[in-house]
Amino acid sequence: MTARRLTLYPQSNYQFTTKDKQPEEDPTVSARMRRLESEYEVHGMRRSVDAILLFHQKGFPHLLILQISNTYFKLPGGYLNPGEDEIEGLKQRLQDRLHSPTHDTLKPGLEDWVIRECVGKWWRPDYDQKTFPWIPDYVTHPKECKKVFVVQLPSHKIFAIPTNMKMIGVPLFELYGNATRYGPQIAMVPQMLSAYDFVPKGDSKI
Amino acid sequence: MTARRLTLYPQSNYQFTTKDKQPEEDPTVSARMRRLESEYEVHGMRRSVDAILLFHQKGFPHLLILQISNTYFKLPGGYLNPGEDEIEGLKQRLQDRLHSPTHDTLKPGLEDWVIRECVGKWWRPDYDQKTFPWIPDYVTHPKECKKVFVVQLPSHKIFAIPTNMKMIGVPLFELYGNATRYGPQIAMVPQMLSAYDFVPKGDSKI
Repeated sequence: MTARRLTLYPQSNYQFTTKDKQPEEDPTVSARMRRLESEYEVHGMRRSVDAILLFHQKGFPHLLILQISNTYFKLPGGYLNPGEDEIEGLKQRLQDRLHSPTHDTLKPGLEDWVIRECVGKWWRPDYDQKTFPWIPDYVTHPKECKKVFVVQLPSHKIFAIPTNMKMIGVPLFELYGNATRYGPQIAMVPQMLSAYDFVPKGDSKI
Repeated sequence: MTARRLTLYPQSNYQFTTKDKQPEEDPTVSARMRRLESEYEVHGMRRSVDAILLFHQKGFPHLLILQISNTYFKLPGGYLNPGEDEIEGLKQRLQDRLHSPTHDTLKPGLEDWVIRECVGKWWRPDYDQKTFPWIPDYVTHPKECKKVFVVQLPSHKIFAIPTNMKMIGVPLFELYGNATRYGPQIAMVPQMLSAYDFVPKGDSKI
């Protein structure tokens, strides 16, 4: 029942550099669905974990998302291996995708990823693109469950983004209700965060 | 980081009877906005609290909402008095609206209302019907903040509903994305609950 608070640091505290590209594992949506199906037959339901990373600009929260193409955006995160712990797995996915090998003094440097709570889940009933924030009535064997976690970023950090992606900061108001552009999962982040009090710190607050 | 669980009991465990009508305090939307404005000038931002009450039917979660007219639905709850505690205030609003005076052996019987956490907030920037799940950038003095709490219902209960209202149970899939019928706040309840695991108990699970 305690209030949920998240400290936001200004965008100017973060730097973005690049590193080697990390191609999508599946070149097309249909290839992705075929792999989901073949892995389901071996391992059962896929477990995925995504991260909500936020900074502020003049006090207003912005979400960090990866832009893969003009029309494809995603939260940083990924699939877990069978049996892999979801918290440790999410830290590892964030590290693999976003850390800067030339700036990290610690290896593997997972300390920077402070995983807070799960604020939502998305269930995929079938081998297609439809996902729902609860298990629909007719579904007995969902094919994927993706958990979305809030992450407390450190006050300063240098990110390195694979050259085939861009990392962009999008204000919450731009995401809200904008499933057409960002997809339902990203468009729903403002609602998933709606119980939070944001505490903006640092110098870009005007 | 612990999983959020909510026990759901079957609809058949709950009975619904009636009691004296409780007319809306404001007969029209514009009257409601005028009162919001006049109270804001005296007391500042209005604080409201609403409740998410759930049961299950054959294992599937349903939300209890009040139907005021053919097109007007709301969550049980209400405005807090200046300085009133939000948890105790929500219990009192639920009691006033929903308890059955002929069946409650305890008075005031507030023990039945177990308020869990706040799962979302709605901010009203102006004296109109627009609300947002965060504080929009241009807003320095929001006029209302409504907090939405999950409530753990007891295994059995007799509700009494004012005769000018109906209480209806709506499955989450019917609410999801259906802001046109239920309004944005109720339509968003499935997403606000999306981090929860529901644990259906009792005999109507097939």
